[in-house]
Amino acid sequence: MTGFSFAIAARDGAARTGTIVTPHGPIRTPAFMPVGTQATVKGMYMDQVKALGADVILGNTYHLMLRPGAERIAALGGLHRFGGWSGPILTDSGGFQVMSLAKLRKLTETGVTFASHIDGSRYELTPERSVAIQGLLGADIQMQLDECVALPNDRATIEKAMQLSLRWAERSQRAFAAQPPGRALFGIVQGGDQPDLRVDSAKALSAMDFPGYSIGGLAVGEPQEVMLAMIEAVMPHLPDARPHYLMGVGTPDDLLAAIARGIDMFDCVMPTRNGRHGQAFSRFGRVNFRNARHADDPRPLDETSSCPAARDYSRAYLHHLVRTEEMLGSMLITWINLAYYQDLMAGAREAIAAGRFADYAAEVRANWDRGDIQPWSA
Amino acid sequence: MTGFSFAIAARDGAARTGTIVTPHGPIRTPAFMPVGTQATVKGMYMDQVKALGADVILGNTYHLMLRPGAERIAALGGLHRFGGWSGPILTDSGGFQVMSLAKLRKLTETGVTFASHIDGSRYELTPERSVAIQGLLGADIQMQLDECVALPNDRATIEKAMQLSLRWAERSQRAFAAQPPGRALFGIVQGGDQPDLRVDSAKALSAMDFPGYSIGGLAVGEPQEVMLAMIEAVMPHLPDARPHYLMGVGTPDDLLAAIARGIDMFDCVMPTRNGRHGQAFSRFGRVNFRNARHADDPRPLDETSSCPAARDYSRAYLHHLVRTEEMLGSMLITWINLAYYQDLMAGAREAIAAGRFADYAAEVRANWDRGDIQPWSA
Repeated sequence: MTGFSFAIAARDGAARTGTIVTPHGPIRTPAFMPVGTQATVKGMYMDQVKALGADVILGNTYHLMLRPGAERIAALGGLHRFGGWSGPILTDSGGFQVMSLAKLRKLTETGVTFASHIDGSRYELTPERSVAIQGLLGADIQMQLDECVALPNDRATIEKAMQLSLRWAERSQRAFAAQPPGRALFGIVQGGDQPDLRVDSAKALSAMDFPGYSIGGLAVGEPQEVMLAMIEAVMPHLPDARPHYLMGVGTPDDLLAAIARGIDMFDCVMPTRNGRHGQAFSRFGRVNFRNARHADDPRPLDETSSCPAARDYSRAYLHHLVRTEEMLGSMLITWINLAYYQDLMAGAREAIAAGRFADYAAEVRANWDRGDIQPWSA
Repeated sequence: MTGFSFAIAARDGAARTGTIVTPHGPIRTPAFMPVGTQATVKGMYMDQVKALGADVILGNTYHLMLRPGAERIAALGGLHRFGGWSGPILTDSGGFQVMSLAKLRKLTETGVTFASHIDGSRYELTPERSVAIQGLLGADIQMQLDECVALPNDRATIEKAMQLSLRWAERSQRAFAAQPPGRALFGIVQGGDQPDLRVDSAKALSAMDFPGYSIGGLAVGEPQEVMLAMIEAVMPHLPDARPHYLMGVGTPDDLLAAIARGIDMFDCVMPTRNGRHGQAFSRFGRVNFRNARHADDPRPLDETSSCPAARDYSRAYLHHLVRTEEMLGSMLITWINLAYYQDLMAGAREAIAAGRFADYAAEVRANWDRGDIQPWSA
């Protein structure tokens, strides 16, 4: 079994491209991780996900601890085997979804108790239990339990959550030491929209020497410039040689902006969730297939796409599938979107290696600004 | 373009195996047609459907005339191109679903007017319009408009509907004459559960010389023995050399029983619909993946299946996907079910050719009776 490592192969300004090595194989960075919440990337076969060039997927500790349960997945051979994904898996700590989904939450220094949003049954999640669950799942990259607050919020609340998250980082690290070698636990920078609190968090975590660093608590409703300002505040205080993971972000534009500021890893439900609602990401920006303008359009979404779903079906057909709420509509547009995100990352890696990332980002954005191909007329 | 033909290659008792030739290729019989209601077989990619060995799929005139509309599909190149299926397509007449789904129905000698179940807009379906719609869709095999009554029902109602269906058969045939050569229009035997009415219908249709004959108005709630008795009553009065299509049927057992009585073609929503509800068809009979007994079971459904979904995923995982209502659960179990139906038909064709259909049916049924593999225990 290979150990965890990160090698930066090329730099272009603050942007970097490289390779993270995990027990289940390499991750080319910058990397976008499709979200496989409940041991499935919604509407996709895992071999499709792999074929798109995704190296790593994300699993959600909160959902998996409720159903089917971490001990059950462990008994069935772990999450890789359970869900049929042989590549690297990253799991979150469960904390974010306890805050957004669970009921009757009670947060103490020890951890958080809550009632399942499914059946109301009671659970406790502590830093130790979160790491234990992620270990049972067999995740290659694990997250410390943290407290993530909504934004905007008052400074005292943000600071308290950040300080608690630091104490939980230490407890997580101690608990994680019991796991098989090769896996990695990331610390998570908190501090809301307060640059100095972000810096305090980054410094304290850096002193704990994690193999990778996440920036959490963003993409919770704040404007993009706030998110980018927080990244800029934090970056000088995180170890340069370790992977930097911006959690839960974001739009294609967010990704380009964050890569330019030194982020290596991303996850987001946007390509899968928006795909289920008929919205495609493409070279030409976002295309809403619910819109009636597609009803008679015989053209594919993008005949130059790497994705068969964007090449082999008419816009009229995709529109029809969305309007009739057919599963295939969700399947095809999710496929299109994940392909777009993966291709965006592949392009970024190539551009960074060639020292032309700024040009690449400008070209991609110019295509979005030009908008969708002119409407077809019969 | 090839003309429509049917050649019987082998017989075994009343069962037959052969090939129907259509403008879009051959159909090996006995054939099961996956239902592609709205220009998609729910939860399946068309290349998966093809790979299962399905030669022909069914489209529903009622649904397609409402969304996206027959003229629109024609302008987009026809249903084959629209839905990405290059093989033969059979369409129903729309009559059955007008009766089961539409509102404010008014039936006259001319046809039926109704309000869409989607938005209440008004439509008229006549024998001529039904054939015109099926022609616009480009269906290789089309159905006459008929009146299908629920069972049980009073004899006068059944007889009146049967006689109306005969008059509509004549009008359908005249209207169909305008279509490109090579396509086929089937007459539909009606007569409810009244053997003599069924015989009258079959004789009258036979005199009209259709290239194929459907038996309609069954699988509407009557016991299997009634259905089989109707097939037995009708068969001696239908041209032996023409394909016989039992509409909307049925369970795997129905299929075996009907093949033994000379039926060549089937369609049914059962494998797809039950698949979406977590019920799999297998060598061992039906398996309900909603059942908690699968929660810890690491075994695949059937490692000898031709279908990757039955071999490559644990029962525990399929159970998890059904319980969490993940799309992939519907996708995998639909795939399993359509594979099972296609394999059942392939086995029937082989057995008939080898003169051992009765043995084949007995073996298949013995496996069902033996039931699912013994429950796994940890």
